[in-house]
Amino acid sequence: MKVFRSLTKSKALQENTFDKKVGQRPGYLYVPDNAHQPRMFLISFDEDQIQEKEYQDYDQLLHYFKTNPQQQHWIDIRGYGNIALLEKIMADFTIHPLQMEDVISDYQRPKMDTEGKNLFFISRMIMFLPDHCLDDDQISIFTGVNYIITFQSDYEDCLDVLRNRIRSGKGIIRQRPVQYMAYAIMDVTIDNYFPVLSAVGEYLEELEDALFDHPTKKQLNSILNMKRELLKVRRIAWSERDKLNEILRSDNNTIPDEIKIYFKDVYDHVVQVLDIVDNYRELMGNLTELYLSNVSNRMNEIMKVLTIISSIFIPLSFVAGVYGMNFSRENPDGTINYLNMPELYHPYGYVILLAVMFLILIGQLYFFYRKGWLRSF
Amino acid sequence: MKVFRSLTKSKALQENTFDKKVGQRPGYLYVPDNAHQPRMFLISFDEDQIQEKEYQDYDQLLHYFKTNPQQQHWIDIRGYGNIALLEKIMADFTIHPLQMEDVISDYQRPKMDTEGKNLFFISRMIMFLPDHCLDDDQISIFTGVNYIITFQSDYEDCLDVLRNRIRSGKGIIRQRPVQYMAYAIMDVTIDNYFPVLSAVGEYLEELEDALFDHPTKKQLNSILNMKRELLKVRRIAWSERDKLNEILRSDNNTIPDEIKIYFKDVYDHVVQVLDIVDNYRELMGNLTELYLSNVSNRMNEIMKVLTIISSIFIPLSFVAGVYGMNFSRENPDGTINYLNMPELYHPYGYVILLAVMFLILIGQLYFFYRKGWLRSF
Amino acid sequence: MKVFRSLTKSKALQENTFDKKVGQRPGYLYVPDNAHQPRMFLISFDEDQIQEKEYQDYDQLLHYFKTNPQQQHWIDIRGYGNIALLEKIMADFTIHPLQMEDVISDYQRPKMDTEGKNLFFISRMIMFLPDHCLDDDQISIFTGVNYIITFQSDYEDCLDVLRNRIRSGKGIIRQRPVQYMAYAIMDVTIDNYFPVLSAVGEYLEELEDALFDHPTKKQLNSILNMKRELLKVRRIAWSERDKLNEILRSDNNTIPDEIKIYFKDVYDHVVQVLDIVDNYRELMGNLTELYLSNVSNRMNEIMKVLTIISSIFIPLSFVAGVYGMNFSRENPDGTINYLNMPELYHPYGYVILLAVMFLILIGQLYFFYRKGWLRSF
Amino acid sequence: MKVFRSLTKSKALQENTFDKKVGQRPGYLYVPDNAHQPRMFLISFDEDQIQEKEYQDYDQLLHYFKTNPQQQHWIDIRGYGNIALLEKIMADFTIHPLQMEDVISDYQRPKMDTEGKNLFFISRMIMFLPDHCLDDDQISIFTGVNYIITFQSDYEDCLDVLRNRIRSGKGIIRQRPVQYMAYAIMDVTIDNYFPVLSAVGEYLEELEDALFDHPTKKQLNSILNMKRELLKVRRIAWSERDKLNEILRSDNNTIPDEIKIYFKDVYDHVVQVLDIVDNYRELMGNLTELYLSNVSNRMNEIMKVLTIISSIFIPLSFVAGVYGMNFSRENPDGTINYLNMPELYHPYGYVILLAVMFLILIGQLYFFYRKGWLRSF
Amino acid sequence: MKVFRSLTKSKALQENTFDKKVGQRPGYLYVPDNAHQPRMFLISFDEDQIQEKEYQDYDQLLHYFKTNPQQQHWIDIRGYGNIALLEKIMADFTIHPLQMEDVISDYQRPKMDTEGKNLFFISRMIMFLPDHCLDDDQISIFTGVNYIITFQSDYEDCLDVLRNRIRSGKGIIRQRPVQYMAYAIMDVTIDNYFPVLSAVGEYLEELEDALFDHPTKKQLNSILNMKRELLKVRRIAWSERDKLNEILRSDNNTIPDEIKIYFKDVYDHVVQVLDIVDNYRELMGNLTELYLSNVSNRMNEIMKVLTIISSIFIPLSFVAGVYGMNFSRENPDGTINYLNMPELYHPYGYVILLAVMFLILIGQLYFFYRKGWLRSF
Repeated sequence: MKVFRSLTKSKALQENTFDKKVGQRPGYLYVPDNAHQPRMFLISFDEDQIQEKEYQDYDQLLHYFKTNPQQQHWIDIRGYGNIALLEKIMADFTIHPLQMEDVISDYQRPKMDTEGKNLFFISRMIMFLPDHCLDDDQISIFTGVNYIITFQSDYEDCLDVLRNRIRSGKGIIRQRPVQYMAYAIMDVTIDNYFPVLSAVGEYLEELEDALFDHPTKKQLNSILNMKRELLKVRRIAWSERDKLNEILRSDNNTIPDEIKIYFKDVYDHVVQVLDIVDNYRELMGNLTELYLSNVSNRMNEIMKVLTIISSIFIPLSFVAGVYGMNFSRENPDGTINYLNMPELYHPYGYVILLAVMFLILIGQLYFFYRKGWLRSF
Repeated sequence: MKVFRSLTKSKALQENTFDKKVGQRPGYLYVPDNAHQPRMFLISFDEDQIQEKEYQDYDQLLHYFKTNPQQQHWIDIRGYGNIALLEKIMADFTIHPLQMEDVISDYQRPKMDTEGKNLFFISRMIMFLPDHCLDDDQISIFTGVNYIITFQSDYEDCLDVLRNRIRSGKGIIRQRPVQYMAYAIMDVTIDNYFPVLSAVGEYLEELEDALFDHPTKKQLNSILNMKRELLKVRRIAWSERDKLNEILRSDNNTIPDEIKIYFKDVYDHVVQVLDIVDNYRELMGNLTELYLSNVSNRMNEIMKVLTIISSIFIPLSFVAGVYGMNFSRENPDGTINYLNMPELYHPYGYVILLAVMFLILIGQLYFFYRKGWLRSF
Repeated sequence: MKVFRSLTKSKALQENTFDKKVGQRPGYLYVPDNAHQPRMFLISFDEDQIQEKEYQDYDQLLHYFKTNPQQQHWIDIRGYGNIALLEKIMADFTIHPLQMEDVISDYQRPKMDTEGKNLFFISRMIMFLPDHCLDDDQISIFTGVNYIITFQSDYEDCLDVLRNRIRSGKGIIRQRPVQYMAYAIMDVTIDNYFPVLSAVGEYLEELEDALFDHPTKKQLNSILNMKRELLKVRRIAWSERDKLNEILRSDNNTIPDEIKIYFKDVYDHVVQVLDIVDNYRELMGNLTELYLSNVSNRMNEIMKVLTIISSIFIPLSFVAGVYGMNFSRENPDGTINYLNMPELYHPYGYVILLAVMFLILIGQLYFFYRKGWLRSF
Repeated sequence: MKVFRSLTKSKALQENTFDKKVGQRPGYLYVPDNAHQPRMFLISFDEDQIQEKEYQDYDQLLHYFKTNPQQQHWIDIRGYGNIALLEKIMADFTIHPLQMEDVISDYQRPKMDTEGKNLFFISRMIMFLPDHCLDDDQISIFTGVNYIITFQSDYEDCLDVLRNRIRSGKGIIRQRPVQYMAYAIMDVTIDNYFPVLSAVGEYLEELEDALFDHPTKKQLNSILNMKRELLKVRRIAWSERDKLNEILRSDNNTIPDEIKIYFKDVYDHVVQVLDIVDNYRELMGNLTELYLSNVSNRMNEIMKVLTIISSIFIPLSFVAGVYGMNFSRENPDGTINYLNMPELYHPYGYVILLAVMFLILIGQLYFFYRKGWLRSF
Repeated sequence: MKVFRSLTKSKALQENTFDKKVGQRPGYLYVPDNAHQPRMFLISFDEDQIQEKEYQDYDQLLHYFKTNPQQQHWIDIRGYGNIALLEKIMADFTIHPLQMEDVISDYQRPKMDTEGKNLFFISRMIMFLPDHCLDDDQISIFTGVNYIITFQSDYEDCLDVLRNRIRSGKGIIRQRPVQYMAYAIMDVTIDNYFPVLSAVGEYLEELEDALFDHPTKKQLNSILNMKRELLKVRRIAWSERDKLNEILRSDNNTIPDEIKIYFKDVYDHVVQVLDIVDNYRELMGNLTELYLSNVSNRMNEIMKVLTIISSIFIPLSFVAGVYGMNFSRENPDGTINYLNMPELYHPYGYVILLAVMFLILIGQLYFFYRKGWLRSF
């Protein structure tokens, strides 16, 4: 059970990346060996028709793109494992080397960059892994006049609902400028936070139930872990908020007003995400306090048992001990010593003693009852 | 006893809503199956007369509205269960789809949206439920030239006092522009926070009394729960404050200066709500600390009993044990061994021993008395 | 011992007020039944002379005021129990209904309102009640061309020193515009915070001494209570600061520069108040920590006594118990069994055993001494 | 050991001051009876020569000042005990009464005031008293065209190094405008914080060592005390920072750019002071946590001793107790009862029992060793 | 194990430095005796060629620099031990005395200073020392038209990767203005934070493992220590962020736009550093809480052992004690007293008693099992 589980996986700290990148020239593209080979998809559409294809060959893709300037294109690159390809794309679409470095560094806060009419966005998707960690993945978006390019490291993503929407021609997405598509991608990405947070909520509920049944160190650990994971989500959502703020405040040449109203909607969703995350973090603070007070309460419980048992039987044992003493009934001169433990020779001595012991017991139990210590058994 | 009670009910996380909405086109109106069928009310008035009616048929409502442009109208829709109706209203009153999505999403922070002369407000009412949770409900307000439309999910609300005021013609509400009516609704909504907070205060007082009588884990739980509920209220009130700030800072075309002075008054009330909520939260922090220190104090109490009883009787038992030993009074040669436990054969041995034991007892009690350990019994 | 003592008295939550006010038209003047009947004072002066009178009849007061326009007037209304009077004043001095509502609501943060050349200020006085609560009271100030009107709920206040100053003609107050008098009132109000805080300081010192002598749950309660009271003072002082900031930043038509330098001085005093309050709150945080560590230390103390006594006597009791066993000295065949407890028959058995027990005792005491456990007795 | 030690000495709360000042006219100069009689020093210099003298008679000082307009003058007043003198200075150098009130109030945050070309600064020196409190003292600076006036309450200060520098003509101080001298005074004042903080650091180190050797309640008290003292320093330094910020942002007529670069340097030093103070406060938070965990650990230690001793000897005592029972070997008919405690009559009974007890002892010690409870002895 | 370890080494508090500097004229260069003798390196290059040399004689260096104005020069001074040299450099490159004071004071927050076209930057490198402290070192950078001067106190630094890049001509560094070189140095400095933080992460992981195996006071100390070290890093990184913000916001004459985009990249890295540091600090808060709950849990564990053993054997001992009493079987008249302890004379007395004791034992074990106290053994 490692608190560090998620830390050591932290992309920002993967040793090999840093050891190989420190001191390199800016814009140096370093790709770890286990990066996926890129797959290239092109979705081209106008209001009337749509064409969708996975290309093995970048030049074919580029050729189609160039010969159909009247269409809108979504160039969808998944995996970074081929630097030569990335460099070709950089050249063909005039992407700044530092931006491409951001794309594959895979540990960027959500942000927005403007270069003339071209925009560069970074968004982050979050996932709830089976081991109750939250992972996050980067999606980088470039927009040009009639195209949008997205990069992501894995083949899987949360954008299929959007692709289906484009395919089916539902909604207005195919009649709008490409910034609208950038909006749509960010919208889907943010919308995807809610089911993830919903799953986190269920997990927290399980944790809470377990904590009430039988609180263990492991649960505290899980709570603290999840609190930290949510801190990460909070930081990402906060950056998303900043990014959207920047979009909303940008002048109208960059993003037209009719599109901005949609970004305002995403902004509201991000604020909801922040609300939920803060709610969870407050809740986990409460759970931690409950756990700690449970530990104290259990200690109280244990001490009560010890105190009741000891307080009853230690005095009784003393009494029994007294009458186990061997004071001599006989004086040296053989006469009876009536002072040494005469109780032992009383005809009802034993019976009276048992009665006295019983009274002591009853008295103590009453005392503990009055103190409320017998209640929780 | 669930900490999550209010969480799982959280509207933002109702699974079915999210599973059905993720990836849908923006402005997609999703209404859960259990939504109320809409009821439509129309209050039309000018300075001299007032007409009030519940319509079964939207077209009749619209017809009356259109044929009486000289009057002010309050179109009051309660329940969202009919999407076709909502879409008709959107078309007739030029409401943006994203705004209508906000109306029925039912989990929006209070906010203000401007579109030309038309305004869109979201306010939230809070309620104190019998199970000591705070629920909140959304009221959405659109204003046009001579009308105001309000949407809410339930049939019940806190606006009846306002309706009565309009009916009776008390106050100046019927002589003012429609923004004044928007103000009046928000004013009543915020004023309604005070009795709710007053009820919360009484509940906290009960909790506190219980905590002083017999602190239990359940009470800590209730305190932490209510703290979180109030965090929610705080967040809502904060957004109300932001909304009102935006109203006050908006230019005079949107909201005339003579109306703004009324909004300033609502603003002051919201600040009072925030003061009270912060006061309660500080108080609940104090109650938590009191609870924890109570737990520690009880532990001290328990330990004191154990220590006093044990410290008194364990040494006495030892003494008794000594004189229960069977050292032989006889030497092997049959002579008397005067060294082996001569006390046992002393004529006053037992009496002296009892006296010594009594002195030990007195000494210990004096020691505990001096330490102040006997005081709290 | 109620933590809520001050809460339930909170003016913002007095039930009757709210139940009667929710939903009323804005500017509705509600006065609780127990409000004082207003007393009306008029101080009129110019550089040369001063006239001071309590009026029973408002019209006389107004008449004097109107016939002496060359003088400055301080109309001093104490008590709100007469709504008709308040409405007359509103009409004669063109006070906005919402401002009059603020005056008698008696739970307003300090603030400033400008209407043309007329100003409206709310200040709050604080008092240290004998039951160690801090109460606060509102003083509302309107300034016109040659008059100032103050409202307060009680007959008593802290402004007598100022009235004396006007009477005696000391200082420059009678040669300055009326804003200077508004300044003077606020200055006296703020200056009055210092003796109150000084009294709080003495009370905290008493609390601290008690906490060192014999810490009880009641003291913790008092500390937490006072912390919350000071939070209230802090919030008021913060609003005073905001108000003064607004005054200092207002343009020169409203308040002339020669007066502003005096407000700057009040501002500095408010900042000092905030410093002292923060200092006290830090101190009370420290006292809470001391209290909790005291509770833990006492537990340590108790456990030490228990441990020392038990650790010494339980082993000794065991030894005594061993020699209280009844193993038979005789074999079945009547011979002596030299293996069964030969110590009991040793001539020096008892003496040696006592010596051994004494050594065990010494050894344990040395062990506890080395551990430092004997030190604090 | 009072937590309040420094509080009750707090200058802002000295009763006599407040009781005499509340309600006085602004600018009223109140000087407590124990104020020092003022001593007046004049240092006059130009690039070539320097004249330095203590004056008994203010008029002589003023005369010299007036007849040497080509020189720069530092009028250095120490002690406030003579109000007549202060009023004369106010008149001769056109000092505002409120500013003079600030000078002698002796509890002002560092600040800056501008009146035309004349400037008014308040700085605060800090000292580390032998009883481990931090005291602070005010130095007030007025600058005019060719003079600077400083006020302070005590005869001693930290400016002698600066006076020596002027005397010896080292540095550029005698060639610069008087604002440079104001800079020099503030620079020396701030530089003096570092040795004080260095002494505090050594004191904290002592505290820490003591806390590791034998933590006591007194040390916790000292730590909390010092934390509060540093809060005071922090607040002062923060105001110094604000003051310097204001100087740096002031327009160039007030303070020439060539001087501002020096104030930038002081600003950097103040930021360093804030860093150190924050570092110390974090450290003291750590020490508090260490102390509390030490208390818990000692409790664990104590409980371990108790548990080990009790767990070993209570069962053994029980066993011994069993064989101390007096079950009769004889049946009523005189035959031997072989069922009643036959162990006592076994030839090796005692030896076997001792062996069993020894095994129990070993077993328990092994159990405790496995649990790691024997380690820390 | 000193918490103060890093404090006493703090450069800002080295006594000798402060004792010698307080009151000195501004710009006074004080160098401690143990400062390294300066080594001077000159790297001169243009696009085509590069010359690199360590000079023993400053005049030679200056001569080469002056006779090659067409090249770019990096003057690299390591060690401050020669004040005369520093003053010569100040004169030749018009460095302000206060800036040179900053250079050698070695305790400056990262910052930026502009003087005309010349820029002055301070950056800080961090190192992870073998004793698990974080040390930091200053690098000061001056830029002129065609040169850059760097100062640092040690001979070693983290810039060798950059020097290699210049030598090999990789990247665009040799074609850009000198501000680009300033950027490159800061970039390498910040990039170097990541491996350091990665090492810190590994160390924290070790700490965490140790804390789970056997938590000790020493580990808590290490955690608190590291938390404070990271606070230092946080403060430095925050200043770096401010510095970079200032660079990005500076007007384009100072730093050209084509360079600013690179600084934007460094800015992003600094934000990542802050994210990681905050993540670590949250983690260490969690570890502290885990440690404290572990201490409580161990206490629970100890108490459980004590309670189980005591609760079982104390009552059993009492029972044994009862039958160890010596009540007389004989009446004074020699008849048998059948009331005094008849159990002792019952033929199956002992066997029955053992059975009863066994039942008590079983009953208690079941009780403890039901309470879950036997689980964690």
